[in-house]
Amino acid sequence: MNVDRIKKQFPIFKKHPEIHFFDSAASSLKHKDAIKSLSDYLAYNGTNVHRGVYKLAAEATDLYEGARAKVADFIHADVSEIVFTKSTTHAINMLAYAIQDLINEGDEIVISELEHHSNLLPWLNLAEKKKAVVKFIPLEKGSITISNFKKVLSKKTKLVVTHHISNVFGYVAPIKKMIELAHKVGAYVFVDCAQSASQVEIDAKKLDIDFLAFSGHKMYGPNGIGVLYGKKNLLEMINPAEFGGEMVDKVHLDKESTYKAVPYKFESGTPPIAEAIGLASAIDFIKKGNRKAKYQYTLNLRNYILENLKDEKGITIYNKDFDTNLITLNIDGVHPHDVASFLDSMEVCVRAGHHCNQLTMRYLEQNATIRASVGIYNTIEDCDVLIKALKETRDFFIGFWKE
Amino acid sequence: MNVDRIKKQFPIFKKHPEIHFFDSAASSLKHKDAIKSLSDYLAYNGTNVHRGVYKLAAEATDLYEGARAKVADFIHADVSEIVFTKSTTHAINMLAYAIQDLINEGDEIVISELEHHSNLLPWLNLAEKKKAVVKFIPLEKGSITISNFKKVLSKKTKLVVTHHISNVFGYVAPIKKMIELAHKVGAYVFVDCAQSASQVEIDAKKLDIDFLAFSGHKMYGPNGIGVLYGKKNLLEMINPAEFGGEMVDKVHLDKESTYKAVPYKFESGTPPIAEAIGLASAIDFIKKGNRKAKYQYTLNLRNYILENLKDEKGITIYNKDFDTNLITLNIDGVHPHDVASFLDSMEVCVRAGHHCNQLTMRYLEQNATIRASVGIYNTIEDCDVLIKALKETRDFFIGFWKE
Repeated sequence: MNVDRIKKQFPIFKKHPEIHFFDSAASSLKHKDAIKSLSDYLAYNGTNVHRGVYKLAAEATDLYEGARAKVADFIHADVSEIVFTKSTTHAINMLAYAIQDLINEGDEIVISELEHHSNLLPWLNLAEKKKAVVKFIPLEKGSITISNFKKVLSKKTKLVVTHHISNVFGYVAPIKKMIELAHKVGAYVFVDCAQSASQVEIDAKKLDIDFLAFSGHKMYGPNGIGVLYGKKNLLEMINPAEFGGEMVDKVHLDKESTYKAVPYKFESGTPPIAEAIGLASAIDFIKKGNRKAKYQYTLNLRNYILENLKDEKGITIYNKDFDTNLITLNIDGVHPHDVASFLDSMEVCVRAGHHCNQLTMRYLEQNATIRASVGIYNTIEDCDVLIKALKETRDFFIGFWKE
Repeated sequence: MNVDRIKKQFPIFKKHPEIHFFDSAASSLKHKDAIKSLSDYLAYNGTNVHRGVYKLAAEATDLYEGARAKVADFIHADVSEIVFTKSTTHAINMLAYAIQDLINEGDEIVISELEHHSNLLPWLNLAEKKKAVVKFIPLEKGSITISNFKKVLSKKTKLVVTHHISNVFGYVAPIKKMIELAHKVGAYVFVDCAQSASQVEIDAKKLDIDFLAFSGHKMYGPNGIGVLYGKKNLLEMINPAEFGGEMVDKVHLDKESTYKAVPYKFESGTPPIAEAIGLASAIDFIKKGNRKAKYQYTLNLRNYILENLKDEKGITIYNKDFDTNLITLNIDGVHPHDVASFLDSMEVCVRAGHHCNQLTMRYLEQNATIRASVGIYNTIEDCDVLIKALKETRDFFIGFWKE
């Protein structure tokens, strides 16, 4: 993998060659092709889809539906199973509204404390509304084990909710086995793929996933675009989450209106057309070349950082055992926001906070941590600067205390 | 108003100088500054807002919150009253979910048959869920009169829903008086400003509007961005519509979580950052110069088209009496899709269909119509081509029948 060639494909490094960006798990930087295809549509077309009879509108529809086909291919799904949304969070909220009628009083929703708030709160709200019971999978060393999963799974389980890769630990959930077991008890499974879509192949068919979601801005693509995948028969069965133009077939006032076929039933109003087109280009970039080699590259960098920090005094790493692109740590006795500010003065961008995941923070008995996440454009030099900056920050504060 | 200078600000005319675009009411073409500010953020920043401690993230937050301030100023609101959404449709659906607890069995929702499906179906769904009663304002010559509005307004009315400018007739609703009367009976008012935001000034404060919505793609700005406005005390009172990261303050499992202050309570997940920035630039363009003169310019073009078509045999115009930027018509006996295809062969882009408004179509006793909407970039030459194309289409089909 030629990282210099890849870096050149991210315009930000022309303006900010000085930055060492380790916050890709919050929002990755954007690939030039995603920006170009998005802005080309805005500049040279800009018309609405599915509506106009004229050539420009047909071209817009082709571009938008072409993007859907690319997304479908990306996760091994059918085009009818791909719904464009605003974001992963929006997709999850839509799904939680859409399946309300499937959840009855006393039904159980199985989830873990590792979930991002966006994959926790919509389900807590659903459970409250429908008087369902939320069961948390007991964690073992910060991860889901199948034996612990079995402890909370039962015939009462109607829905299993899980991340694919956790956003704090970078931990990969054993989704294949979880899905198998969930299906045996007749439960549906939703998988939050926000962190995984940029990194590993997701085969919705092979994994037999019922529903999943991810978004463009964490995969080198644009903001304002997310994807909700659902098995066709399930999407057909559940209710529309949002109502309006383009999703309705016949409007009735005396009975329920009839809706368009999936996926259009879920796309009310003018969709994020430009953003879907940009996402398709981001997918092209991600799929180009050897995906496994790219994944391995980011892992190697992450492991390099780990190796250089794991025995350092005064630095606590919370996810030494997990094998993905991010590292979560604290400098003992120093608030993560202070650490991040120090790092910023050395042009190192990391995230400090609870990472929209207060449950995992409670599990760690921390209010906040530093999270450094590796993207495809990071170099070994970036890692060296990060390592040096963290050590200097620690040394500065130790010196500060000694005074 | 120098229309040549304005046309140069729309990149599409460089690629497609041949087109005569009359579908701005569906999606307007995009102004260069909106595209540039959006793509500059993607290219040279791309980081997340409200989260990062580093400089780039602070810059992204400044740009995003700066866009919010611009929108607030645009409609004379406070920044805390502006929620960024995916689209007008999304904003309306969010509101319909958020106010569920305010609507009780037997409460009445007053609405009209002039509404776009996006401003009809979410309310029908809400009414069904909450066993509320939907009351339609009887129309008089295709418009809402205050005397008819009074007929359906009562102490039972909890919510009045209306367009500002209708998307089929271009009719301007008497919202000032409607709001006054609605407030007297204690009802809340939602105004759909999707068609009006690009055309006329909206003063939320002076009009005393409770809630309103509009979107970027109909006002020379990007896709994937909408605005929900609500009075601060109302936004504080109603529930979050979507749950997730960035909208929650403290997550609790044993009681309801606490949420951030408005407007953040309504912005869960990563927002459409680039799109909000692009929308701000579109607003700059709209506000530049004399807005009333610009509005008058599009009206003059619309009236020019009307004058040249109104006495033509075989052409029925449905909104002769309404004074805005669009004209809705049919060529007698010819399906609107055929008309639109013919016009397209002459590089004229119009919309054909029910315009996401089946109720208004039923009112007209038509399945579909042709809608030609004038944008700020249209010229008198465009209008001449449109007029000529419509007459030729009529003549062709008359000839066709005679054979």
